[in-house]
Amino acid sequence: MSEANRIAFEKLIGARPVLDGCRKAGEAIPGFKRNLILHSGPPVEYKNMRGPHRMGVVGAAIFEGLAKDEKEAVGMIESGEIELGCANDWNSGGPGAGITSYSMAVLTVTEKNSGTRAVAAPIEGAQGGGLGGWGVYTPEVGENLKRIEGTCAPLLDAALKAAGGISVADLFAEGLLMGDDEHTRQAATDKQFLAALIEPLMNTTLSDAERLTLLRWLNSCRRFVHHIGCASAVASLKSAANVPGATLVTAMCGNGYEFGIKISGRGERWHVAPAPTFQGRCFNPADSLSDAAPWLGDSSNVEAWGLGGLAAAAAPALLAGRAEAPADGVAQCAEMAKICYGRNPLFRVPLIPEGCTPAGILPELAVETGITPKMHGGILSRVTGGQIGVGYARTPLTCFEKALR
Amino acid sequence: MSEANRIAFEKLIGARPVLDGCRKAGEAIPGFKRNLILHSGPPVEYKNMRGPHRMGVVGAAIFEGLAKDEKEAVGMIESGEIELGCANDWNSGGPGAGITSYSMAVLTVTEKNSGTRAVAAPIEGAQGGGLGGWGVYTPEVGENLKRIEGTCAPLLDAALKAAGGISVADLFAEGLLMGDDEHTRQAATDKQFLAALIEPLMNTTLSDAERLTLLRWLNSCRRFVHHIGCASAVASLKSAANVPGATLVTAMCGNGYEFGIKISGRGERWHVAPAPTFQGRCFNPADSLSDAAPWLGDSSNVEAWGLGGLAAAAAPALLAGRAEAPADGVAQCAEMAKICYGRNPLFRVPLIPEGCTPAGILPELAVETGITPKMHGGILSRVTGGQIGVGYARTPLTCFEKALR
Repeated sequence: MSEANRIAFEKLIGARPVLDGCRKAGEAIPGFKRNLILHSGPPVEYKNMRGPHRMGVVGAAIFEGLAKDEKEAVGMIESGEIELGCANDWNSGGPGAGITSYSMAVLTVTEKNSGTRAVAAPIEGAQGGGLGGWGVYTPEVGENLKRIEGTCAPLLDAALKAAGGISVADLFAEGLLMGDDEHTRQAATDKQFLAALIEPLMNTTLSDAERLTLLRWLNSCRRFVHHIGCASAVASLKSAANVPGATLVTAMCGNGYEFGIKISGRGERWHVAPAPTFQGRCFNPADSLSDAAPWLGDSSNVEAWGLGGLAAAAAPALLAGRAEAPADGVAQCAEMAKICYGRNPLFRVPLIPEGCTPAGILPELAVETGITPKMHGGILSRVTGGQIGVGYARTPLTCFEKALR
Repeated sequence: MSEANRIAFEKLIGARPVLDGCRKAGEAIPGFKRNLILHSGPPVEYKNMRGPHRMGVVGAAIFEGLAKDEKEAVGMIESGEIELGCANDWNSGGPGAGITSYSMAVLTVTEKNSGTRAVAAPIEGAQGGGLGGWGVYTPEVGENLKRIEGTCAPLLDAALKAAGGISVADLFAEGLLMGDDEHTRQAATDKQFLAALIEPLMNTTLSDAERLTLLRWLNSCRRFVHHIGCASAVASLKSAANVPGATLVTAMCGNGYEFGIKISGRGERWHVAPAPTFQGRCFNPADSLSDAAPWLGDSSNVEAWGLGGLAAAAAPALLAGRAEAPADGVAQCAEMAKICYGRNPLFRVPLIPEGCTPAGILPELAVETGITPKMHGGILSRVTGGQIGVGYARTPLTCFEKALR
């Protein structure tokens, strides 16, 4: 394997993303514009967008006061008056729709070796995926987003400043030893994160009422740390980008229409293929995998970082949810290792014979073996938009083939 | 296996201990006396006590104002003016020395099917094992105990009342899926417990400052839930006691001099043998297992309940600490299953082929197979009292032989 990939790989496994703030996207993301709306996956025109993105960009336009209704929003998008941006190109990226607009709060992460910064909008708590994740906009969703940006974000920001930031790589390393894969399961890590902020909170100038408001918000948001993980994956992957000649994957995400990857040596260039569908298990026997929506979201960057599907053996309870045994998780990690440059010694999983997770996906190994990354995810219905099961999708092989051309 | 043991076993695996309060031992334990000091393990005279108990009962006598110094305390103990009690006989039992006196706070647990109540003193946080666990008494330890009883206990009690109690069996069932064995590792469960109290806390009449005081105390106490687990084990085991003819083990603990068990059909009768020593791994190569103090503490009731050593496969990170692989944990659970009546379906461990932990230790199976329970524990030095490693001890076979006579 090439020296270029060795360099990129060392940067990736050495990445130390630190969550260091939470504030308005328009202030946190350099060059952001009031008429810009970000979406997940590679770039996509409005006419090709799937439900969550169509709804999401229109919803964000209304939320931002750019348009008064869907018709006006669509007109402004088609005329270019409202700009659509691919989140990953802006060092952003959350689960699902990944809708991010000027007034929404984002979690900010800095990769310490390179200074690479990335963001992701926090999960919307009581509103579930809300506008950011599901593309759903209602007055309640809007009020909640305003509360997050106006009330919760400043509190979290203050706590993080007092903590000197939270090392996400270390947090997730602990989480892997607690049964979380850090993509579709974060049950233990969520509460470890919350607890890690309690003492720093006492060193802020916040009132006790404000401190409790923050803790209650974090406690109410299931999978809060997933969004931290998404931003951390982007920061870590981009810290390994732009190594001349390196093919190591530095982005891997979908928009439901297409799926795209970036590789280190080619910077921000996309290599796309039609969006993949899901394998897995529906909660209700009446539902079918043929109803599953194709992969949509930037959360699969977590796999490119070396977690989620590449750490399946860490999460026996997650595997049980799709009727798989721990040995299946070990086999999955062994399969993923066949297309990776090496392993990340920080991400220990005792059940893996080598002791830690594979990391550093290489297109040439995917093409050579025909093996593609298994990306953990909730299965959403094409019909209703709701979650109908848990499983995984595979990165299309075509993405890797194109990246090598 | 006998119908009597079937009944006792069903009670044991059906046990639903609920943590429902925290208050002064003298008020929480029926019949407690101001001149009574409890210790762990089976009954033991002062002259046969090991360091932690000797120091602990003297320390408690001074803490309670019964004696002004060691000499006076020992005199009062020998004259019977101060009474020593075996904690398990009083439905109490914490890790280590298990010292509990009138003014100390205790966590209270009620087993819901039987109404059986049990207690354990909470861990002493900044003072580590302190008086309760290590038998160490200093002015700082005393101040901390007063703060726990006077300040923290009422706050926790209020939160628990507002929560309607916390189901410990359910909490631990989740914890097993998060890499905790619930004896020597509680890293995930501790923070799940803390988080479970946040919303109930808001429904108390406590001030915000008091709410934060409670959360900070819980957050500062590593292995807080272990003490909850010790009380829950006693409540669960005693809920399975007094089934005529049943030999199922209902207590299993040591005082460093002797180790004792109780069996269901014989109520509170002890069956004792010399205290066992440790196997495992010293942190420092300069230390040796020959320096290890024999088993002292009631925490091994957790194994009799079906956790800790009987759930080793749940905790790969714990096993790694003693240089064992996950497969060793699975083998350990399989070995333990050979001396158990059955399994507890609530305590799921995906790595165990049968899906859940063995439960219900039967003396006849131990005698027949020669296999004895593996009890997880920290290894303490006989010389310094400090922790020198992690490992396990085995219940002496003699206890089981005597129980069948």
